[in-house]
Amino acid sequence: MHDRVWSCSVSTGQTWTVGVTGATGYAGGEVCRLLAGHPQLRLAGVHANSSAGRRLGELQPHLLPFADLTVQASDAASLAGYDVVVLALPHGESAAIADQLPAETLVIDCGADHRLNDPAAWARWYGSVHAGTWPYGLPELPGQREKLVGATRIAVPGCYPTSVTLAMAPALAAGLVEPDVVVVAASGTSGAGKSPKAHLLGSEVMGSASAYGVGGVHRHTPEMIQGLSQAAGGPVGVSFTPTLVPMSRGILATCSAPLKPGIDAEAARAAYADAYADEPFVHLLPEGQWPTTAQVLGANTVALQVAVDADAHRLVVVAAVDNLTKGTGGAAVQCANLALGLPETTGLPLVGVAP
Amino acid sequence: MHDRVWSCSVSTGQTWTVGVTGATGYAGGEVCRLLAGHPQLRLAGVHANSSAGRRLGELQPHLLPFADLTVQASDAASLAGYDVVVLALPHGESAAIADQLPAETLVIDCGADHRLNDPAAWARWYGSVHAGTWPYGLPELPGQREKLVGATRIAVPGCYPTSVTLAMAPALAAGLVEPDVVVVAASGTSGAGKSPKAHLLGSEVMGSASAYGVGGVHRHTPEMIQGLSQAAGGPVGVSFTPTLVPMSRGILATCSAPLKPGIDAEAARAAYADAYADEPFVHLLPEGQWPTTAQVLGANTVALQVAVDADAHRLVVVAAVDNLTKGTGGAAVQCANLALGLPETTGLPLVGVAP
Amino acid sequence: MHDRVWSCSVSTGQTWTVGVTGATGYAGGEVCRLLAGHPQLRLAGVHANSSAGRRLGELQPHLLPFADLTVQASDAASLAGYDVVVLALPHGESAAIADQLPAETLVIDCGADHRLNDPAAWARWYGSVHAGTWPYGLPELPGQREKLVGATRIAVPGCYPTSVTLAMAPALAAGLVEPDVVVVAASGTSGAGKSPKAHLLGSEVMGSASAYGVGGVHRHTPEMIQGLSQAAGGPVGVSFTPTLVPMSRGILATCSAPLKPGIDAEAARAAYADAYADEPFVHLLPEGQWPTTAQVLGANTVALQVAVDADAHRLVVVAAVDNLTKGTGGAAVQCANLALGLPETTGLPLVGVAP
Amino acid sequence: MHDRVWSCSVSTGQTWTVGVTGATGYAGGEVCRLLAGHPQLRLAGVHANSSAGRRLGELQPHLLPFADLTVQASDAASLAGYDVVVLALPHGESAAIADQLPAETLVIDCGADHRLNDPAAWARWYGSVHAGTWPYGLPELPGQREKLVGATRIAVPGCYPTSVTLAMAPALAAGLVEPDVVVVAASGTSGAGKSPKAHLLGSEVMGSASAYGVGGVHRHTPEMIQGLSQAAGGPVGVSFTPTLVPMSRGILATCSAPLKPGIDAEAARAAYADAYADEPFVHLLPEGQWPTTAQVLGANTVALQVAVDADAHRLVVVAAVDNLTKGTGGAAVQCANLALGLPETTGLPLVGVAP
Repeated sequence: MHDRVWSCSVSTGQTWTVGVTGATGYAGGEVCRLLAGHPQLRLAGVHANSSAGRRLGELQPHLLPFADLTVQASDAASLAGYDVVVLALPHGESAAIADQLPAETLVIDCGADHRLNDPAAWARWYGSVHAGTWPYGLPELPGQREKLVGATRIAVPGCYPTSVTLAMAPALAAGLVEPDVVVVAASGTSGAGKSPKAHLLGSEVMGSASAYGVGGVHRHTPEMIQGLSQAAGGPVGVSFTPTLVPMSRGILATCSAPLKPGIDAEAARAAYADAYADEPFVHLLPEGQWPTTAQVLGANTVALQVAVDADAHRLVVVAAVDNLTKGTGGAAVQCANLALGLPETTGLPLVGVAP
Repeated sequence: MHDRVWSCSVSTGQTWTVGVTGATGYAGGEVCRLLAGHPQLRLAGVHANSSAGRRLGELQPHLLPFADLTVQASDAASLAGYDVVVLALPHGESAAIADQLPAETLVIDCGADHRLNDPAAWARWYGSVHAGTWPYGLPELPGQREKLVGATRIAVPGCYPTSVTLAMAPALAAGLVEPDVVVVAASGTSGAGKSPKAHLLGSEVMGSASAYGVGGVHRHTPEMIQGLSQAAGGPVGVSFTPTLVPMSRGILATCSAPLKPGIDAEAARAAYADAYADEPFVHLLPEGQWPTTAQVLGANTVALQVAVDADAHRLVVVAAVDNLTKGTGGAAVQCANLALGLPETTGLPLVGVAP
Repeated sequence: MHDRVWSCSVSTGQTWTVGVTGATGYAGGEVCRLLAGHPQLRLAGVHANSSAGRRLGELQPHLLPFADLTVQASDAASLAGYDVVVLALPHGESAAIADQLPAETLVIDCGADHRLNDPAAWARWYGSVHAGTWPYGLPELPGQREKLVGATRIAVPGCYPTSVTLAMAPALAAGLVEPDVVVVAASGTSGAGKSPKAHLLGSEVMGSASAYGVGGVHRHTPEMIQGLSQAAGGPVGVSFTPTLVPMSRGILATCSAPLKPGIDAEAARAAYADAYADEPFVHLLPEGQWPTTAQVLGANTVALQVAVDADAHRLVVVAAVDNLTKGTGGAAVQCANLALGLPETTGLPLVGVAP
Repeated sequence: MHDRVWSCSVSTGQTWTVGVTGATGYAGGEVCRLLAGHPQLRLAGVHANSSAGRRLGELQPHLLPFADLTVQASDAASLAGYDVVVLALPHGESAAIADQLPAETLVIDCGADHRLNDPAAWARWYGSVHAGTWPYGLPELPGQREKLVGATRIAVPGCYPTSVTLAMAPALAAGLVEPDVVVVAASGTSGAGKSPKAHLLGSEVMGSASAYGVGGVHRHTPEMIQGLSQAAGGPVGVSFTPTLVPMSRGILATCSAPLKPGIDAEAARAAYADAYADEPFVHLLPEGQWPTTAQVLGANTVALQVAVDADAHRLVVVAAVDNLTKGTGGAAVQCANLALGLPETTGLPLVGVAP
């Protein structure tokens, strides 16, 4: 089996063992998919709250090289001994495990537990005691990358906040717009997870677009406010409406804010070109080309475009990401690369699977 | 064949003959589909710019009862003699034909030519001389229904303006919000028409969401501004971003505007309940239920829901319509019913084809 | 509400009340959808095993005219008093209810319980005692229509058997082929029902085709054998493989059998043209045109095409049906029309919702 | 840009330059996508019949690392100087170019020109003079791998023949079945290419399954017969019906043939387990698990399952492949690896992008 595991990468020098818990879900499965192509991170064990004892292949049929791995229990004892532990668990479940793992183990949390700085915000949106804040795994946010190099605890951003924060941070940081952002995001259904619910059946979602969490009630909202306020250097308001569209993967975030006086298209474009000039995973598209989620499907990349609406006096920015790759699993690997001192792009696809 | 044409409806009293031009396209085809179920409007001829002489069945395989009709030329001479003529042509082509049709013929234009009141707006957005304004076929707009009863010329609204105007008119008319509307709409691909383009191939659109016409450049924008300003009794600004999602039919329009002081959810809901209490085609959903395009697929109905975002101080309204039914072909039949003195709902499906 | 219920049809003379149980599922919901457009059958009550007491609108959002109906219990007492009762229940549940309904009530069973003639076949495939055989609701099968006129108990065929039987019966009846049929059918996901299962999630089915029930184990197989053997006048063998493809509705059945000596394309085409010349719901397409499920979506029609493979010496027949309309709910209404002496096509759409 | 090109792979030792012509189409684009992850094959130039002079990014938005490459002309002179040339051109165009390339250049043809051994078959199916036969790039066919090691001219199989040949070859080689195969394959739309045609529009294909090329007329049929006859050691008949289903990528091939006396499920399973025990890209799934195209999306793998239908006396085999990866572009890379003496799996994804 290992020949297969290793076949699409070449081991070079040091390798680290990785244990993934929540490996039977969509986020954990994506981490496993990416590790199959990583030359220095080796998937050494898969864990889950349920399904312990079953073959991974029954639950994740696409993970053929790992099909014969046996799912193990998801507790600190079972997760001890890996160099890296990735937590892909429902919110509220990460802290208990993380607290019992050795301090030197690199722990990357794909859940929400350690993202918010403000305990009050956590209490309001999640209704429980805050587990504490870990370095926020969005290296493209100004000043953030340095905090991740050598870190042993990292909180991977939510998929919506990743797309929205990368879309609006440059405009807010450069003072192009008022700190009053309106976001409508179209998401694929994998963002809703793998537990069966009637409204997520293929029969219900195919051929249908729908809204949910309307009116500022989506739990990703405070995370967007936190990231954008950091970029703006002051409080930012966000009106966020998520919608579900008939695709499995992908987020297309359409974001806008009122332009400040005197800002034109050239100034806006320049701010984005400067902000992302050296970012390997963020692509400001050439003028006239608009993002599609297909172009980033399965890749750790973000496609961006900006426009100025001179009549409505708004800056409009559209971002496309794969919610499972750059939105979760790819970001986890990107953060692991940074924390371990590997090149940030090691093992991460840059090309979407299109058409 | 007529047995089939008539099989799902029962003729009652007077009937009118209908000629449809542009019958080989999506909008014209939808008019034909609906006429197959209409008890008093009889499809008597199909016309098109191209394809004259071919069987309709080759070009519209779903129109089985009409499969053997021969496509005729699309000119005033060929279209003379019908009681009702429906124009489903590219913008700019309706006026020349309409001017030559008898004044007493009911002419319903599914195109843009006669929608805008302001010749300057037409010139700016379409770059040609304005053909003149016809009664606007959106009966649900306050004061509009009366203008359609007995009319002989009617301009059917665009699909996006239908969804956005019905979504925001009540809030603007009731003074719930500032006249500064932000719209992001997800549309199925049929809105882009039937002429083959690479970016509209199934291989490109399936599994992908994309933006287009960003920055206030979509031609439906001035029509939204016109309708919403009529409702508001003053100028309204609209920032409109259309997106393409992987479905053939449907528009999900997410609209928002800043709340005026003191407006709460109850007041907002009441305004919508009042506005649409007697409208057979507009449904304000019960609290907690959100619109899906599937629930209105193939039906002439609009599903609406409203929410107040107290943190962002915005009213958010989501509307779902079928762009080809209530968005075009169904609206054409609804307007014909009104103009001819028939019950407005005659022959129009009220139930979407779901799942 | 009734205005809406009746708005797309015109009552003419006698009407019958209809009660639908299993109305919260896909098959029952389709019956309700069609009744909204039927001039003489009035949906008078909805029932379900679970969800009693809830608004139908919560469970079937597209049934807007019926949204305020309260779901009632599904038992014989609750179902008494309707002129017509439609049973859309899991197999094994129909008999107990039907036995307690008045003999004069028209009972139409969308389930499998009363389809098979052979108790041994029932026992083998369903593992329980056979409930008895009712007239088989496939009027297009030679000699079958007469058995349905005036019947008070009718078993609606399964969706796959409808498509396969109509596809191959003419060839077998005319002796064009050996009685050895191979079928591979692509089905939309609604055929798998509405109860949430992980493999039916939109995330799993979108962008994916899969096989299931391979090796002759699908329970619809004996029903196909029964119908085709009746047409052939002798035993017919069927190898049936169902596949799941990314759409909500529709079955595309590709059927073939070895040609008998001397049979050419003309003879094959003639046999099908003759068999279905007078059938309002079965369309043999013109040569060169192939069926698509989109052309029959939401319609009670079947689109057929035949071809001769001279190299492989096989007749190939492709049939497209909507599994929920002609495949279930539309067939139920068609049978009710026949049983009640109404024109067979009353209230049934003949035009698919395309594109 | 090269940092990005190389970021998801690690150069190890010798590298080869690759030129791809037809790089603006789906097959050529897939070769480019895979080269972005290959450690030793470097995409050095992109070519196309049309679009010369344009940025690749305009035409293949997902190929972000290669977006700034300029498309060059597609002729022998422009293609000279690469170590490897991949031809992804319409059939009939490869020979003229290949004949002018140096004998030592490794030329891999993704088109049909050099696949068929029999000039008469070519003449019948393609209506032109045969360009000659190259080693057939299906290493998993018994005896075929050796012919590819060190070859300088390789013909990549068609996508349908790859799935069908791998599905049925073991049964025919082991004498489990009669040489009389029936195939119905469901394909995604990318197999139909990128040139815009109305019936391939998203509006037409979404929500719809359709048949085409029915009656043994598809040009891939003789290639299936050739490969299966080689495996069987005698003539094999194939009845092949392709269908189009609503997904961009993937082929699900359902194949069956009459069982020979005495063959049971165990024997059938053993033959497949033996045939593919050492094949890194062909996976016989565990009993009870059936192939899905999602599990191989974007991967160079084939998922297989076998079943015995004891009633119909047939062996049924289902294979899932990605038509653009193992079906074309991945096979091209696999063949290049073999020809150049690299490990066969170098740079090829083994894990599908699911969900």
